[in-house]
Amino acid sequence: MLVNCVVYQNGKKLADIPVEEISEYVTRQDCFVWVALAEQEPAELDKMAEEFGLHPLAVEDARKGHQRPKIEEYDESLFVVLQMVEAPKEGLDGSLRLGEVAIFVGDNYILSVRHHTQKGFVDVRARTEREPELLRNGSAYVLYALMDNVVDRYFPIIDALESELEQIEEQIFVRNAARSNIKALYTLKRQLMTLKHAVDPLMDATGKLYGGRVPHLCAGMQEYFRDVYDHLHRIHASIEAIREMLATAIQVNLGMISLNETEVTKKLAGWAAMIAVPTMLAGIYGMNFKYMPELDWAYGYPLSVAVMIGIDVWLYFRFRKAHWL
Amino acid sequence: MLVNCVVYQNGKKLADIPVEEISEYVTRQDCFVWVALAEQEPAELDKMAEEFGLHPLAVEDARKGHQRPKIEEYDESLFVVLQMVEAPKEGLDGSLRLGEVAIFVGDNYILSVRHHTQKGFVDVRARTEREPELLRNGSAYVLYALMDNVVDRYFPIIDALESELEQIEEQIFVRNAARSNIKALYTLKRQLMTLKHAVDPLMDATGKLYGGRVPHLCAGMQEYFRDVYDHLHRIHASIEAIREMLATAIQVNLGMISLNETEVTKKLAGWAAMIAVPTMLAGIYGMNFKYMPELDWAYGYPLSVAVMIGIDVWLYFRFRKAHWL
Amino acid sequence: MLVNCVVYQNGKKLADIPVEEISEYVTRQDCFVWVALAEQEPAELDKMAEEFGLHPLAVEDARKGHQRPKIEEYDESLFVVLQMVEAPKEGLDGSLRLGEVAIFVGDNYILSVRHHTQKGFVDVRARTEREPELLRNGSAYVLYALMDNVVDRYFPIIDALESELEQIEEQIFVRNAARSNIKALYTLKRQLMTLKHAVDPLMDATGKLYGGRVPHLCAGMQEYFRDVYDHLHRIHASIEAIREMLATAIQVNLGMISLNETEVTKKLAGWAAMIAVPTMLAGIYGMNFKYMPELDWAYGYPLSVAVMIGIDVWLYFRFRKAHWL
Amino acid sequence: MLVNCVVYQNGKKLADIPVEEISEYVTRQDCFVWVALAEQEPAELDKMAEEFGLHPLAVEDARKGHQRPKIEEYDESLFVVLQMVEAPKEGLDGSLRLGEVAIFVGDNYILSVRHHTQKGFVDVRARTEREPELLRNGSAYVLYALMDNVVDRYFPIIDALESELEQIEEQIFVRNAARSNIKALYTLKRQLMTLKHAVDPLMDATGKLYGGRVPHLCAGMQEYFRDVYDHLHRIHASIEAIREMLATAIQVNLGMISLNETEVTKKLAGWAAMIAVPTMLAGIYGMNFKYMPELDWAYGYPLSVAVMIGIDVWLYFRFRKAHWL
Amino acid sequence: MLVNCVVYQNGKKLADIPVEEISEYVTRQDCFVWVALAEQEPAELDKMAEEFGLHPLAVEDARKGHQRPKIEEYDESLFVVLQMVEAPKEGLDGSLRLGEVAIFVGDNYILSVRHHTQKGFVDVRARTEREPELLRNGSAYVLYALMDNVVDRYFPIIDALESELEQIEEQIFVRNAARSNIKALYTLKRQLMTLKHAVDPLMDATGKLYGGRVPHLCAGMQEYFRDVYDHLHRIHASIEAIREMLATAIQVNLGMISLNETEVTKKLAGWAAMIAVPTMLAGIYGMNFKYMPELDWAYGYPLSVAVMIGIDVWLYFRFRKAHWL
Repeated sequence: MLVNCVVYQNGKKLADIPVEEISEYVTRQDCFVWVALAEQEPAELDKMAEEFGLHPLAVEDARKGHQRPKIEEYDESLFVVLQMVEAPKEGLDGSLRLGEVAIFVGDNYILSVRHHTQKGFVDVRARTEREPELLRNGSAYVLYALMDNVVDRYFPIIDALESELEQIEEQIFVRNAARSNIKALYTLKRQLMTLKHAVDPLMDATGKLYGGRVPHLCAGMQEYFRDVYDHLHRIHASIEAIREMLATAIQVNLGMISLNETEVTKKLAGWAAMIAVPTMLAGIYGMNFKYMPELDWAYGYPLSVAVMIGIDVWLYFRFRKAHWL
Repeated sequence: MLVNCVVYQNGKKLADIPVEEISEYVTRQDCFVWVALAEQEPAELDKMAEEFGLHPLAVEDARKGHQRPKIEEYDESLFVVLQMVEAPKEGLDGSLRLGEVAIFVGDNYILSVRHHTQKGFVDVRARTEREPELLRNGSAYVLYALMDNVVDRYFPIIDALESELEQIEEQIFVRNAARSNIKALYTLKRQLMTLKHAVDPLMDATGKLYGGRVPHLCAGMQEYFRDVYDHLHRIHASIEAIREMLATAIQVNLGMISLNETEVTKKLAGWAAMIAVPTMLAGIYGMNFKYMPELDWAYGYPLSVAVMIGIDVWLYFRFRKAHWL
Repeated sequence: MLVNCVVYQNGKKLADIPVEEISEYVTRQDCFVWVALAEQEPAELDKMAEEFGLHPLAVEDARKGHQRPKIEEYDESLFVVLQMVEAPKEGLDGSLRLGEVAIFVGDNYILSVRHHTQKGFVDVRARTEREPELLRNGSAYVLYALMDNVVDRYFPIIDALESELEQIEEQIFVRNAARSNIKALYTLKRQLMTLKHAVDPLMDATGKLYGGRVPHLCAGMQEYFRDVYDHLHRIHASIEAIREMLATAIQVNLGMISLNETEVTKKLAGWAAMIAVPTMLAGIYGMNFKYMPELDWAYGYPLSVAVMIGIDVWLYFRFRKAHWL
Repeated sequence: MLVNCVVYQNGKKLADIPVEEISEYVTRQDCFVWVALAEQEPAELDKMAEEFGLHPLAVEDARKGHQRPKIEEYDESLFVVLQMVEAPKEGLDGSLRLGEVAIFVGDNYILSVRHHTQKGFVDVRARTEREPELLRNGSAYVLYALMDNVVDRYFPIIDALESELEQIEEQIFVRNAARSNIKALYTLKRQLMTLKHAVDPLMDATGKLYGGRVPHLCAGMQEYFRDVYDHLHRIHASIEAIREMLATAIQVNLGMISLNETEVTKKLAGWAAMIAVPTMLAGIYGMNFKYMPELDWAYGYPLSVAVMIGIDVWLYFRFRKAHWL
Repeated sequence: MLVNCVVYQNGKKLADIPVEEISEYVTRQDCFVWVALAEQEPAELDKMAEEFGLHPLAVEDARKGHQRPKIEEYDESLFVVLQMVEAPKEGLDGSLRLGEVAIFVGDNYILSVRHHTQKGFVDVRARTEREPELLRNGSAYVLYALMDNVVDRYFPIIDALESELEQIEEQIFVRNAARSNIKALYTLKRQLMTLKHAVDPLMDATGKLYGGRVPHLCAGMQEYFRDVYDHLHRIHASIEAIREMLATAIQVNLGMISLNETEVTKKLAGWAAMIAVPTMLAGIYGMNFKYMPELDWAYGYPLSVAVMIGIDVWLYFRFRKAHWL
């Protein structure tokens, strides 16, 4: 589905054009064409490949989807794949949803193709059109704006994961919460891995856009791509921090489970003792010996019961003191 | 066993030739010979070594088999070893089967020798012959096609492992499944390691075919080998993701086992209490004291039994509320 | 809030100047201006950006805060972000507080902007003014002095964490301390991670100020920045040491919990035996067989009780010897 | 002890010579001397050091033994230390035995000194003498042959460790084997570490003999040393695979131990219930109430016993169904 | 405290000189001064800094102490910090003691300052004076001799740690030793970390004295510094080996604790059954039914006791066979 197809000149929008006219503008020195596709159909992408002269391997990747995030150079053009991570509306219980956007960038064009993602890049287009002095930098600036936008969408996700971890941490030393904690920790781990596999390869790839041998296209924009890299690095550091705390939390939770087991055993032992001792005494006075003087005492029965209760009260306070009960 | 021996010129099949004529074609500028052996016999391989002038160390590796995946340069030629990972037909219960293919590539020839693998490369030959404009690139393109084919066969395996992990994850928080989970996790780990040891060394080796100092043979084909590398990297990332989730799953499963232990202990304690208390009471009324007024009451017996039942009912609901029963 | 705005010439303070006069001094060859802001308001920072010609991306980072520690070059100037880690006054029970200082450094100016931190850099200014022969090195020396000051503030934190670990270690083999140990270990881990994420990125960044291609600004000051790096490396090594011991301590603590479980079970078993054996004997003499000679013995009852006590005493010493009780 | 001292010319054995004549041959252009010592005495090694002009630090290393595997350049000569790992004859129960061979290689000589190892290098000498066209490469080829031989001896060890792991894996899910498994896993880990510390440093060192700046001596032999490296890499990969599976196996075994604990507890609980319920019933009918109608029934006793048995049978099948028994 | 202050010329001792005369000799071409301080007082070090022209940052490090091991270049001179690890005399129960030595090396001088360490470098001075042909290499050779000496002192420590680990390993599969094992493992870990933090940074630093761009001072001595590096690498490898075995031992020990728990539970269950069954039988014959034929049998009582004993004997052998008792 074609979302937009616009020509820009000197940082200003020139016109919305039909797809057929792309080839006219794409050869002009001072223009560039910015096309946005969503959930592309094969025919559309083929058309684009022809208009812009895209490399068949890149086109095949964009068509198939399910790529890992990457930035590849094909001669003078770049092929960028980004993953968009979206939290389901109903909160963080389930797994994160993954969208994908493939971007083809040449000197005079930029083509974005997005999959499985609801939120598009209308905001990005609006914002960049408001800043003509920056948009004058051409397609590389649009690439920066798109990447910056995708990366900014990771921040609320990482914040949600962090607050999820904090919630679990509060529960971790609470008794009887082990089962739900363990589930929550595992779910969090899964979500974290999803985010990590969207962020880490992209960070590595972005690092090549500002230091060392930079692709021709990004030459004047290095400080901008370093900014994107810096954001990705910050997310990466947060992911690693959560990951390490998560590993520790899982171990600590295991310790709490064992500890609870011990406490259950102690409690069990305490009550068992308080039942077993009277039972033993009752057993003794249930013996059928002929000569058992206590049996004939007038107050034998209440006395024996009193002894039983006395022992139990004493046991109860001893166990209490030892924190078994 | 000789499978095929074909000469190509300018991307088109020229003729099937007998082995003896190889040396005639292999020296022509614009031809290349593509030979496929399967489960080679020593004599065959010696013959080939002579025809193509293969290096004795490479020939010895191909003969012995059980190599790790690698790409080695011998002067102007390449020696490539790939591992083929095949799932047994009866599902993923057992271990994965490993096949192997050794490929010798020179400017004018390509020789593949496969071992312990049922599925050959007939498809590859058919597909490449349908694309003469690409096949014109010569033996390096055939190498690409073979590697691409082998790598594509890893995808269904990794998908199977991923869905296996998902199945275990669903079972992991189910009670009483710990034993089968633990077995399944261990088997999955083994399978994952098999795949990892096929993929990782190949990825490293393939990385040298497109960046930095590229072997002479692969010079014009770098984008194609980068594509293979990219696929391997994607599989590698999936393997690492499964591996990390697997480690977490094993730990979580350990936690679930301990948790179940605690729950069994609690259940046990609950029922024990409900038996022990009446036993104690019965013991008390079984004492042989002379003066035990309750014993003479007309309704002493039913009353005592009622008290027992009453206490048990009360205990039952208390334990229920505390989630011990 | 403007804290200070001072011009220095040849290592000596020239004058406190109002913000408006900055532009006069900043272009002089032998002067530099040192401005300190605290909890800046947007307007202030915009003013500064204009006076010093700061890069918009850096200004945006300083305004937003919550950056990771970093050192970025913008043409001839540097943008430095440091994190300040402060222990809460009421001891190390809670989490560490994080402050932040952003520093813009050019040939003729240095601007520090601090956030969320109580202790400022008045000491640094006083000390550097007492050493005019060093201050003559210009803004780079002030940068060194600020970084050195921030890094020196990490040492008491790491000392506190080390002594915290030692305290836990003393408790770890004490019985019944497992629950508080496990909490303390987790809290310590959290604090350690906070410090680690302040120190590690800064160490990496500082490493680029003295070796290899050094930013123009820091050219003559390499030994000083190596000194800062060395301090950071020492803190880093201490963090890694605590981290590894912490991981071991968590595992060992888990072992101690299991061990205590075993000991509780043994104790429980011991006392259970000492109750169960007399109960069994009493049960036997409570049987209603007609012909049970012991029942008619005059000393049957005391004898049976004596046997019970005898067995219990024997059991007690056996369990004692086996360290079950 | 001098094992051999032979001069070779153009790949062919010239003569066995006495140690005194070494200096005559070692200066000839086209000859090289190959000396083998075993369990050297100090005097022998000093003599050799003098004849060949060995570096004192290398000689000291060879004399002391207990070196880690390494390859060091001293000007034009190489000093190589290899470890030989031998399985004890009585199987893999104990720890692996470590031998050592120090090799000094110069343009015209090669001297091997072996320690604590029974099997020498007679085979190597015999094989190389059968291949004069290769032996013509001189001392570097002999070095290759010795290294190849030592590395080939690692393969049966790694095979033994792999089959040891497989044996343990078969036992791991068998009940009641936990104790012997845990011992076997620990022993295997120890053996693996021994092999790892022989293989890994050697692999790193060998890597420098074929890529990048290669020592003058090995110049024409790079493909051969790459072959040794490749073998070492294969062993290294196997070691890493075993190591990772071992770590998983230890964790899984821990899980199985906990699982068995739970199963024992369940079994215990099941039988306890089947004993406790009749005991409770018997207690009830052992009460001394005057009016207990059942007591007077003619079939009261068999009925009560029947009820007891009935409840136990019912319990038995319930526990059976729940897999507690 | 000044220990020594000696001038050497051409590898031979010239004279003991007072501190005041240092400046006379330090400028002579063919001389060098070797000064040793122990537990320096501030004034001494200031004096030295003046005489040798030491860098203030290095002097400050030497004064403060508690540095990590490092080798820093200041123009033409080197500043080296080494840690000396000493086992307490009363064995390895406590923690290792850390001493420190700071060494300043220039072309014509070497100054060592040691802290918190009893054993000095008198041996080193004596040995180097016995080898004038080596001492002729000047201050760099003395640096080598000092480093070699410090590194050689690590070997007995690592041997002690290794034998400590072996002792624990022998205990690990012994029952009832878990508590002392766990303590010993933790103490060993602590000691290992202390050694590791002395050795690892030094190894990295020493690596820069022989490969790549070597400091001017060490130019002709590279083989000697490589030897020191090699020793450090060997210690490093031993530390890593102990560390990995230690981690495994801790896990295995945890497994043994769980296993013992299971065994205790089984034993407990066995004896419980042997008490509970007779108790149940006794309960049954303690019921007050009117018509219980067995009660009237002459041999009812002994028979019932015989049955009880019979069942217990049978149970005992069954449990024995199942290894529960």
